[in-house]
Amino acid sequence: MKRLETMKELVFQNDSKILYWVFDGIGGLPHPESGKTELETANTPALDAFARRSSCGGLRPYGAGITPGSGPGHLALFGYPLDEFDLPRGVLEVLGADGAYRNGEWVGAVDPEPGDLAMRGNFASLDTVDGQTVVADRRASRIATEESRRVCEQLSRQLAVEGYELYVFPGKEHRFALLIRGPGLAGGLTDSDPQKSGIPPNKVEAQHPGAEKAASLVNDIIAQATEILDGEPAAHTTLMRGIGCAPDIPSLQELYGIRAAAIATYPMYRGIARLLGMDIIDVDGMSHEAEVRALEENFDKYDFFYLHIKETDSVAHKGDFDAKVEIFESCDPLFERATELDFDVIALTGDHCTPCVLGDHSWHPIPTALWSKTVLNGGVESFDERQVQRGTLGTVASRDLLPLALAEAQRFNKFGA
Amino acid sequence: MKRLETMKELVFQNDSKILYWVFDGIGGLPHPESGKTELETANTPALDAFARRSSCGGLRPYGAGITPGSGPGHLALFGYPLDEFDLPRGVLEVLGADGAYRNGEWVGAVDPEPGDLAMRGNFASLDTVDGQTVVADRRASRIATEESRRVCEQLSRQLAVEGYELYVFPGKEHRFALLIRGPGLAGGLTDSDPQKSGIPPNKVEAQHPGAEKAASLVNDIIAQATEILDGEPAAHTTLMRGIGCAPDIPSLQELYGIRAAAIATYPMYRGIARLLGMDIIDVDGMSHEAEVRALEENFDKYDFFYLHIKETDSVAHKGDFDAKVEIFESCDPLFERATELDFDVIALTGDHCTPCVLGDHSWHPIPTALWSKTVLNGGVESFDERQVQRGTLGTVASRDLLPLALAEAQRFNKFGA
Repeated sequence: MKRLETMKELVFQNDSKILYWVFDGIGGLPHPESGKTELETANTPALDAFARRSSCGGLRPYGAGITPGSGPGHLALFGYPLDEFDLPRGVLEVLGADGAYRNGEWVGAVDPEPGDLAMRGNFASLDTVDGQTVVADRRASRIATEESRRVCEQLSRQLAVEGYELYVFPGKEHRFALLIRGPGLAGGLTDSDPQKSGIPPNKVEAQHPGAEKAASLVNDIIAQATEILDGEPAAHTTLMRGIGCAPDIPSLQELYGIRAAAIATYPMYRGIARLLGMDIIDVDGMSHEAEVRALEENFDKYDFFYLHIKETDSVAHKGDFDAKVEIFESCDPLFERATELDFDVIALTGDHCTPCVLGDHSWHPIPTALWSKTVLNGGVESFDERQVQRGTLGTVASRDLLPLALAEAQRFNKFGA
Repeated sequence: MKRLETMKELVFQNDSKILYWVFDGIGGLPHPESGKTELETANTPALDAFARRSSCGGLRPYGAGITPGSGPGHLALFGYPLDEFDLPRGVLEVLGADGAYRNGEWVGAVDPEPGDLAMRGNFASLDTVDGQTVVADRRASRIATEESRRVCEQLSRQLAVEGYELYVFPGKEHRFALLIRGPGLAGGLTDSDPQKSGIPPNKVEAQHPGAEKAASLVNDIIAQATEILDGEPAAHTTLMRGIGCAPDIPSLQELYGIRAAAIATYPMYRGIARLLGMDIIDVDGMSHEAEVRALEENFDKYDFFYLHIKETDSVAHKGDFDAKVEIFESCDPLFERATELDFDVIALTGDHCTPCVLGDHSWHPIPTALWSKTVLNGGVESFDERQVQRGTLGTVASRDLLPLALAEAQRFNKFGA
């Protein structure tokens, strides 16, 4: 925290404006036939011109060789040290959900508050073998989404723990999420999901004494759910995993005095942004053009914008090299429109790499171009995975990008005299 | 340890195979006449081709400006944080010895176990000046190696400390090493060697309370040795230095689940490898060709191979530029043979640099090329000290190489969700 505190002391406000343009899963690897990466293949004159006038390099979210999930990738990108702040999978799930039922009522999106305990759930089928209850199907025959939604509503109506609020978030098919709000909760709990069928569900266990109350509460909820679901054709119980507390995380406003806003079409990224204290700007539909329009329309209202393009990651997870190339190309003129606004600092970057040849996130440095009105550019002809390595930014930690952006925005006082 | 623990949690096993090809003292500096470094001078088509398809850069064992010995150089290369793990000089000496005497018997090589106390020794001549015993010759007139061996055997027969095993390792001329095995030992002891003649030997002192027992034990052994050696023509006493405990170091198997093996012709490197839990593969003789043959013959048996070429360092210590160039050239086709095995990841690297113009280890980034089946190569035309700096690896910590190699071998799960 020392560095965060030092930065907090040094920062001051001015009227500069900063844009983070985040292509999710931005970086790739060579296509086996062409030997060219996704960014090398894409025809992106605006990105390339931007890279030439920027300081380029690569970001490492959590050191060499470590592949981050979206949570750590974003936390690092916004300057948070990953050894001190964590976004448990259950919290991400809740952030990414459309909304939740509480006491049988649809209450819409729920923002996790510090201390809330969140978890992912599967509806699962049970069976009795030799007098023992075992998991027969971890996915309850992939129960239909509408069925699952009904079960979530029912659970939310009947589950009850004195002194606690319970929120049930329906997901696709057998998936859902649960959030518990109330005193004395803690993360550090094992999964109840045994990850295979034919054996009994696990008891949730506390990994430290402070989590024992939370463990017994979750076990109680699972037992209640199993009773409530008695008679359901397939969804006989709930298997819980990724259980963790929403972090008490200082906002960007608290740390750096910036009014920050997020432009993102997917719930999870809006959720992460809200958790970091950003305002969420409404986007009219799901198009990238709509995201840029929202940026233009709200330009005057904030100091810092986080604009998130999800699809570069989604298609890369499917291994669709051409689709990723096309998204870069279709976003190229949109990015140019964004640069035509009167920003003082623009970072073109990502939360992690998702090379199509791997079909998953990777550990590679995240191609990044940082531009400001006084940046030291050089060394780079185009914006791609190889070229950026020759830039003046070098390979740095993801969490260094925000301090660099604030510095380029001249928002830091001198450290010492 | 946080990062080591995170990696341990993320790692999983697959059937990938990794090779570390380690040229000891790999990196050099320009020859004053040609202006070319050793690697720039050497004609190494296989190394160069390998570099072109690899991610190249430089490794720093312990941050900028710090020159590592062989112990730290290797520990860092295998991913161990040097602030937490240490190989005291005495332990390295024991690891590098052919073997030891115990109770007057030759017992061959001895593997230091965690908690063993090891130290280097010199036989020294004493004199009495003004009634005070002083060191007359720190090297006992450079007593002949055979004589020294006899003295070691005698010491091992007569030294006795209740409850402890003592091992005496003969070395060249006046040099030897001593290992004490038993309860309650600790490092953090000063040398008894005063480093000059004409003054008395120092008492060994504990640098922290936990080392007081060990200090008095070593002082007792020195006093016993001085009595035993009474009547020897030159070796009147033993001067001790580099005293330290063998570290309790988690093995590569424990940390990363890899079955690791070492191919090295010099005892010290085999010893370090054993300490890290590697199996030692027998090499038929001292030739580099025999090392590669051992690699080929054992390819199926391990996940990870460490192949060590010592002579690039040995000749560089003598300042023999041409000899170092020749070793690179003669190893070039051998390296190519190694690359023809079905490895998934190969790192061509070193433990430190030993530029011939310095005749000693140096602090320069260690030229390194990391190849995998999906690596992002680029920027490099040949494998040499200057070219590698243009590669996609950049300058990273030595301890980052193993995580990167494991990542390229796809042996890590995602960090966070």
